Amino acid sequence: MKSAALSALLSSTLSYASPPHLNLLRPATAVLCRSLLPTSTPNPFHTQLRTAKISASMSSSFKPEQARVPPAIPPPTPPLSKFKIGLCQLSVTADKERNIAHARKAIEEAVEKGAQLVLLPEIWNSPYSNDSFPVYAEDIDAGSDASPSTAMLSEVSHALKITIVGGSIPERCGDQLYNTCCVFGSDGKLKAKHRKIHLFDINIPGKITFMESKTLTAGGSPTIVDTEVGRIGIGICYDIRFSELAMLYAARGAHLICYPGAFNMTTGPLHWELLQRARAADNQLYVATCSPARDAGAGYVAWGHSTLVGPFGEVLATTEHEEAIIISEIDYSLIELRRTNLPLLNQRRGDLYQLVDVQRLDSQ
Amino acid sequence: MKSAALSALLSSTLSYASPPHLNLLRPATAVLCRSLLPTSTPNPFHTQLRTAKISASMSSSFKPEQARVPPAIPPPTPPLSKFKIGLCQLSVTADKERNIAHARKAIEEAVEKGAQLVLLPEIWNSPYSNDSFPVYAEDIDAGSDASPSTAMLSEVSHALKITIVGGSIPERCGDQLYNTCCVFGSDGKLKAKHRKIHLFDINIPGKITFMESKTLTAGGSPTIVDTEVGRIGIGICYDIRFSELAMLYAARGAHLICYPGAFNMTTGPLHWELLQRARAADNQLYVATCSPARDAGAGYVAWGHSTLVGPFGEVLATTEHEEAIIISEIDYSLIELRRTNLPLLNQRRGDLYQLVDVQRLDSQ
Repeated sequence: MKSAALSALLSSTLSYASPPHLNLLRPATAVLCRSLLPTSTPNPFHTQLRTAKISASMSSSFKPEQARVPPAIPPPTPPLSKFKIGLCQLSVTADKERNIAHARKAIEEAVEKGAQLVLLPEIWNSPYSNDSFPVYAEDIDAGSDASPSTAMLSEVSHALKITIVGGSIPERCGDQLYNTCCVFGSDGKLKAKHRKIHLFDINIPGKITFMESKTLTAGGSPTIVDTEVGRIGIGICYDIRFSELAMLYAARGAHLICYPGAFNMTTGPLHWELLQRARAADNQLYVATCSPARDAGAGYVAWGHSTLVGPFGEVLATTEHEEAIIISEIDYSLIELRRTNLPLLNQRRGDLYQLVDVQRLDSQ
Repeated sequence: MKSAALSALLSSTLSYASPPHLNLLRPATAVLCRSLLPTSTPNPFHTQLRTAKISASMSSSFKPEQARVPPAIPPPTPPLSKFKIGLCQLSVTADKERNIAHARKAIEEAVEKGAQLVLLPEIWNSPYSNDSFPVYAEDIDAGSDASPSTAMLSEVSHALKITIVGGSIPERCGDQLYNTCCVFGSDGKLKAKHRKIHLFDINIPGKITFMESKTLTAGGSPTIVDTEVGRIGIGICYDIRFSELAMLYAARGAHLICYPGAFNMTTGPLHWELLQRARAADNQLYVATCSPARDAGAGYVAWGHSTLVGPFGEVLATTEHEEAIIISEIDYSLIELRRTNLPLLNQRRGDLYQLVDVQRLDSQ
């Protein structure tokens, strides 16, 4: 398999490979499509779809519905359309027990301030380094004794009846290590687990060089999950650079994309806010990010600036680099409003370009 | 055809249509793929491709080359890799003759200041309004008498031996009107003609409502052209909102995307710079935009802020809203540098998402 893929690669760099859509043999390993179909309850987003039909019928040769393969589905009616999110920009130390207790305290504080959804930073239980990942990694699937970090998230989400998008921690699974985000529902149950899909391997000489792939394995699936606070797509840090992932989540009906992320002092000022705002504005949905607080003495210095962005690409709340808990309101009715203002979904040119969601197509 | 497409649309909104890739019957009407293949001369961008092979072979199950269909081709070696661009942010009046003479003067001034590529604004020979488009429209294909605006561009590009991306003018072709950008080479010949693909139909009540589709017809093709100053993709204003178009140009080997555009006083401050920087950073290429200067008394008030953005998403030169000629340097070697710093092309997950360039695929 490996050598076949390699030889296909070598032969396809300047000539063109056979149609890849005949090759979609991998089973869908993530959330199955059926669970993403809209509910049968009345859905305000369906007015959007009706508008799409009318508008598209005037320009049907443009095939806007084919700009996403399979066609995009509208966001479902969320159980709660207006609520507060808490972004916990935590300081992280080398003391894992302290990190867990500290995160718990921050979650409790966010909930006291009204948050019904709490987002934690990327790698909040461990220093961010290839040396630390194997040492701090936990076997999430093995349960609470093997994973005190996620055990705490489960316990506190249940106790406080909130949804937690638990940033990320190094995960051990067999011989592999992953950078993994766990989502817990208000019943304390693990609702989804996202393993960072795009590993952070960059080299800007004299500025920042990092190779996550030295220790980590990349995840195999996009992750989108229905929660009590809406349909949420998950990306971790470098995942945000790949606009295709956000486009794919939007086409699966996401209201919100959460990106725990630790950008650095070079790419942070250059790209952190830019990428969040672009993903939100292009896809007309909410984007929330959460970074560790900056520790100037750490091996990897995080940029901070955890942020909530609305569906017009507007920054709704943000902070500098110090430890902070940001509380801000999300109102999903604005998604529909912005999609009515700028009906991008009906204006796409499926006759010219198509984004294929390989696993969703394959699961049909 | 229309009713078949409509019924297909109606039946495919929540169920899924048959695989659209079996339906790519439209002939490629734009630049053919063969003309986009890299030249056989030594090409610094090919080192990038070699790096891609090595890196991708380590992660071949991710199929980065399949993230674009057909696979992306590297930018060709440009005839000139370092040169100055001039962005002419022109005042536009109701007097077409004055607009033409004024644009000529601005082009001459930009060239005096060293520009070898000059970019003009969207709709620079006419007021921007649905009432004006039919009145000011010119039959570009009928030649100089029927199109004094493009005749001037041809003459001045030849006289000054420069490349001109001629903003846009209303074009009449038979019964149809288009918003059209003409590209002239240093021999004065028309090298490409881009008709705005995504018409500007938006409705933000109390802020801005405009329906270009009342008078204009949308173009049928992306437009990318090899010039003496590199391979240039063209979009007009609202085209910039559709990230797929920029992704498709990058995959066709563009060094630079030029967007003549007249954003307004609502979407300008919200999105103009954001979208330019996002297209440049995501695709690691240059983006240049050119707006008319602001006329607060006009029916449509333009935002201005013509800008050049580099392949790291960095603003290299910009201006406020008044008439201005921006001269700034482009250095295509930075494209390769940034793609080495952040090797996004080799990190894409073709096993999870694929962007299909319908016409390029169809032309194979």
